[in-house]
Amino acid sequence: MRKPRLMTPGPAMVPEDVLLELARPVIHHRSAEAKQVITEVTEGLKYVFQTTNDVMILTASGTGAMEAAAVNSVPPGGKAIVLSAGYFGARWASICKAYGIQAIALETEWGRPVDPQTVANALKQHPDAVCVMGTLSETSTGTGHPVEAIGKIVAGTDAIFAVDGISGVGAMECRPDDWNIDILCVGSQKALMLPPGLAFVSVSPKAWARIDAFDSHSFYFNLKAARKKAKEFDTPYTPAHTLILALKAAINRIKSEGIENVWMRHRVMSEACQAGVQALGLELLSTRPAEGLTAFLVPAGVSESKLRASLTDRFGIATVGGQDKLKGKIIRIGHMGYTDELDVIATLAALEMALAGLGFEVEPGRAVTAAQQVLMGARQAVAVG
Amino acid sequence: MRKPRLMTPGPAMVPEDVLLELARPVIHHRSAEAKQVITEVTEGLKYVFQTTNDVMILTASGTGAMEAAAVNSVPPGGKAIVLSAGYFGARWASICKAYGIQAIALETEWGRPVDPQTVANALKQHPDAVCVMGTLSETSTGTGHPVEAIGKIVAGTDAIFAVDGISGVGAMECRPDDWNIDILCVGSQKALMLPPGLAFVSVSPKAWARIDAFDSHSFYFNLKAARKKAKEFDTPYTPAHTLILALKAAINRIKSEGIENVWMRHRVMSEACQAGVQALGLELLSTRPAEGLTAFLVPAGVSESKLRASLTDRFGIATVGGQDKLKGKIIRIGHMGYTDELDVIATLAALEMALAGLGFEVEPGRAVTAAQQVLMGARQAVAVG
Repeated sequence: MRKPRLMTPGPAMVPEDVLLELARPVIHHRSAEAKQVITEVTEGLKYVFQTTNDVMILTASGTGAMEAAAVNSVPPGGKAIVLSAGYFGARWASICKAYGIQAIALETEWGRPVDPQTVANALKQHPDAVCVMGTLSETSTGTGHPVEAIGKIVAGTDAIFAVDGISGVGAMECRPDDWNIDILCVGSQKALMLPPGLAFVSVSPKAWARIDAFDSHSFYFNLKAARKKAKEFDTPYTPAHTLILALKAAINRIKSEGIENVWMRHRVMSEACQAGVQALGLELLSTRPAEGLTAFLVPAGVSESKLRASLTDRFGIATVGGQDKLKGKIIRIGHMGYTDELDVIATLAALEMALAGLGFEVEPGRAVTAAQQVLMGARQAVAVG
Repeated sequence: MRKPRLMTPGPAMVPEDVLLELARPVIHHRSAEAKQVITEVTEGLKYVFQTTNDVMILTASGTGAMEAAAVNSVPPGGKAIVLSAGYFGARWASICKAYGIQAIALETEWGRPVDPQTVANALKQHPDAVCVMGTLSETSTGTGHPVEAIGKIVAGTDAIFAVDGISGVGAMECRPDDWNIDILCVGSQKALMLPPGLAFVSVSPKAWARIDAFDSHSFYFNLKAARKKAKEFDTPYTPAHTLILALKAAINRIKSEGIENVWMRHRVMSEACQAGVQALGLELLSTRPAEGLTAFLVPAGVSESKLRASLTDRFGIATVGGQDKLKGKIIRIGHMGYTDELDVIATLAALEMALAGLGFEVEPGRAVTAAQQVLMGARQAVAVG
């Protein structure tokens, strides 16, 4: 028997009650019932995102939300400052290129956080920049970027701040209103505990002013059209509404747990996973780890593909390797959404056994114990606090 | 008890086995298992679409497929001939406008089929037109357009022919390769018996030549990127892969029935529905009805909203009204995908009772009997043939 555990940084595991919602007979997407759910889900998303900004639902991958952010806020020929510190940071630049937006790319070494000072400098050098495009959690490197500090800098300028929060929102603290995030992009298949197929954007009044200033080269991802329909609790085109209905159940889970507790759970899982990996003598890729995933370097002499295959074949654990220049060099373990402490422990135990099976010297139980220390400490802190 | 029957022209009813696929635990979208299914589904879609052209899967509404067709084949400033005979025909023009494509709109009265001769004339007048954009089944009017005849005309020119087959494909005969359809756009939530969230495009070599000739202003809907990934049985961005897994089950149903039998079933249901409606003295909107839905004029003295509400509240039958200038004037009954002869009979019976309840003079059983005559004739024809 191979019991599957989807420990990938998106898609992530989906709770059983949410899955069962997807098996319900389909209703019409413009029915009163559907509109009522869209109303509730829109309000629920504002809670999950911790924002009072407008929130719109798109039927697309998270990349669609990023495209919507870029093409609606920066006119062709306009300038954007792109914080490129990984595969998904670089995607901002590719989107800009497709739409004739001038992307000033601030490159940061993959695995390091963006230095807010470089953003301040770039904004001084490019006072005509319309938008700064950054990332909350860079999924390709498992790095959390200092979005709050960057947002403070952008807020002092005329530029707006667009953030890819696809694998970050719901997995780590994010406060768009306090942190000056003007456009936040989120996907359904990460900490929101849904299959892929929906994307979300929140838009601040400062961003709307930019968006309202020109006619964007986009039809499907036109945010003005989405805003108009969102006011009627509707969408411009037929949405993936069975996913929206299921999202209600997922949001209810987040509401019951409380968003700050959800963040805390992810922080603790993240620290436990990091401690476990490091206890095996493995090196983390990131100097500022994100909280929804852990990326570590594959040790010398071990094959990344064999190690991942061994985790999957023997233990049913799905992980992912590296993208682009990190291909073959790292393994990424997701711990977001419908994942708990024991999923992390199980993964670490499997990692120990898989490494041992490949001839890597491992003291069995070491990673598990290190993770347990973190988990017990966290429980104690909660009990005392 | 109110037993729901989704008789809308998309979303349409989804078979139980397909729904249950959606409730299965989520797997990773780049896993061997997911790629295997994408391979099978891509081949299956070629069968359903009856094409040997490349077929690509997009995570979007059907409108996203239309946008992909337009923006990838016609460069900004380029010219397109738009066959506008309803709400969705007009959408082609809106997409063109957003991307700076010059749309020559050939307007046809809503409910009438496009006259192929007007297309021939327009192509002569605009020899620089890159693309003719048409519709197989205009969902807003329930009209089937003579796509085969139009395709023959376009094929004799340098222009390509892009067809919105969103509510048509799988519900009425469509043969892209024989009919010279260069780009065919399809949605998941109609005759393909799936919830909304996926769209598909097939692209002919003639269309690829147009697409390869320039860099399109699109990132998410870039067909060159989609083709590259499709060759590896993958997608450029995280797809709504749980819908793709469920699509396999839906395609298996279509394969078992046989695509020509599927078309025949829709033709018979369509003729039965038309006969029933007309037997009540109601007038069809379309002079060339599509086969996945029936649109009829609301009779004088009857309120469209009350009639539809009565169908829903008492009988659980969902229908839709008119869009745009047809608002309040027509009712549209969908009979596509997971719909059978008795669903049509049941709907007609309910329509009789609902009309009677609103004071419209109705001879009960008349629509049902007229439909039965059609169904019995069709069965006899099959038995004899």
